[in-house]
Amino acid sequence: MDSSPSRPENLAARLRQAFLDHGYEQMTMSGLAQLCGFSRRALYHHFSSKEEAFRYWLEFYNHESIARGIAAGRAAMEAGGGAVDVIVETMNVRYGDARRRLARSPHALEVNDQAFRRSRDIIIAVAIDFQAKVVDLLKELEARRQISLKPGVTFEALAQTLCDGARGTNQAVPPIPIDDLHLRYRQIIEAILFGAASAPAGTRGKRVRSSS
Amino acid sequence: MDSSPSRPENLAARLRQAFLDHGYEQMTMSGLAQLCGFSRRALYHHFSSKEEAFRYWLEFYNHESIARGIAAGRAAMEAGGGAVDVIVETMNVRYGDARRRLARSPHALEVNDQAFRRSRDIIIAVAIDFQAKVVDLLKELEARRQISLKPGVTFEALAQTLCDGARGTNQAVPPIPIDDLHLRYRQIIEAILFGAASAPAGTRGKRVRSSS
Repeated sequence: MDSSPSRPENLAARLRQAFLDHGYEQMTMSGLAQLCGFSRRALYHHFSSKEEAFRYWLEFYNHESIARGIAAGRAAMEAGGGAVDVIVETMNVRYGDARRRLARSPHALEVNDQAFRRSRDIIIAVAIDFQAKVVDLLKELEARRQISLKPGVTFEALAQTLCDGARGTNQAVPPIPIDDLHLRYRQIIEAILFGAASAPAGTRGKRVRSSS
Repeated sequence: MDSSPSRPENLAARLRQAFLDHGYEQMTMSGLAQLCGFSRRALYHHFSSKEEAFRYWLEFYNHESIARGIAAGRAAMEAGGGAVDVIVETMNVRYGDARRRLARSPHALEVNDQAFRRSRDIIIAVAIDFQAKVVDLLKELEARRQISLKPGVTFEALAQTLCDGARGTNQAVPPIPIDDLHLRYRQIIEAILFGAASAPAGTRGKRVRSSS
């Protein structure tokens, strides 16, 4: 295998390690070059600034994480899993892996904060991309007769709700212990798909006009 | 009505306005005193630091917001609303009002960031308190035969899932336009309670052993 630091996947892996181990604010281009196995000049050949390197890492790994998440969902589908399994495996890779990796960094808070400040455009673009791929998964699940959407629910709205739910799980307060994360994804995804409760027929109250 | 700046609700209202209008980092105790209608000395009588004043505001309004949220849910219940109405009205006040107010501040990002840095303990304590109160609401809804929990679902787990879902909605990417927030709470809460989909009987795939 080509271990050249210039290969995109090698470069992204070294950048990730560098920022997770040392944080963003204290990092210099010289320090970053050293950690990536480059001369300072060679690093500047790739990136004009630390921010550009940081954004490159985020974009690379977000795309990689989406591809792996969807692949995990599809593997669960091929293994005969139901809709809950497919979506849980997808979310557990897409959102869980990043959360678990970040949890091991002494700079987790800072890196997360910097990501939202410096890469908001990337975060929004990859969220839209991922949601579109979840729509495709849901359509496949329907074609395989694993789910049937309730009246008024669209694939787009359901994908959005599932993503919001998984993201809300990542950001739960108090924070969810890393080892319970998978279980909590299952809890919210199972609920969103098939409901956590039922209402005795005819007893769902009349719809109250909202005050806002 | 007593408009003395020392009354807790007046003090909290002035602190809120001060931090939302001017942010945290640039604020001084002198500036804060002036905005609160105090002498600097009088402000120091209440708080030993800017951070203490900031935390006082956060704690005061979080408790107020929880009380108003639960009251809104109970009002929907008394008006004959179903479980979805009751929980949506609760979350729309508890999470929506803060989000809508913050959206009008030019310092929203900074204030939010500072809240998590300086008041994590308060945020966790009020989240636990709110969740316990949502458990009570759910039990009332069950007593009124508006919901019946599915096997294996506890009131505690359902309250947690509903709170994670509403919080995930607040932090959705791309951000939800303020005017759509209420609708999106309804979307995720209706799904969590009663499901967005159904599975034709007998076709829910076998449970796949998780890879993680």
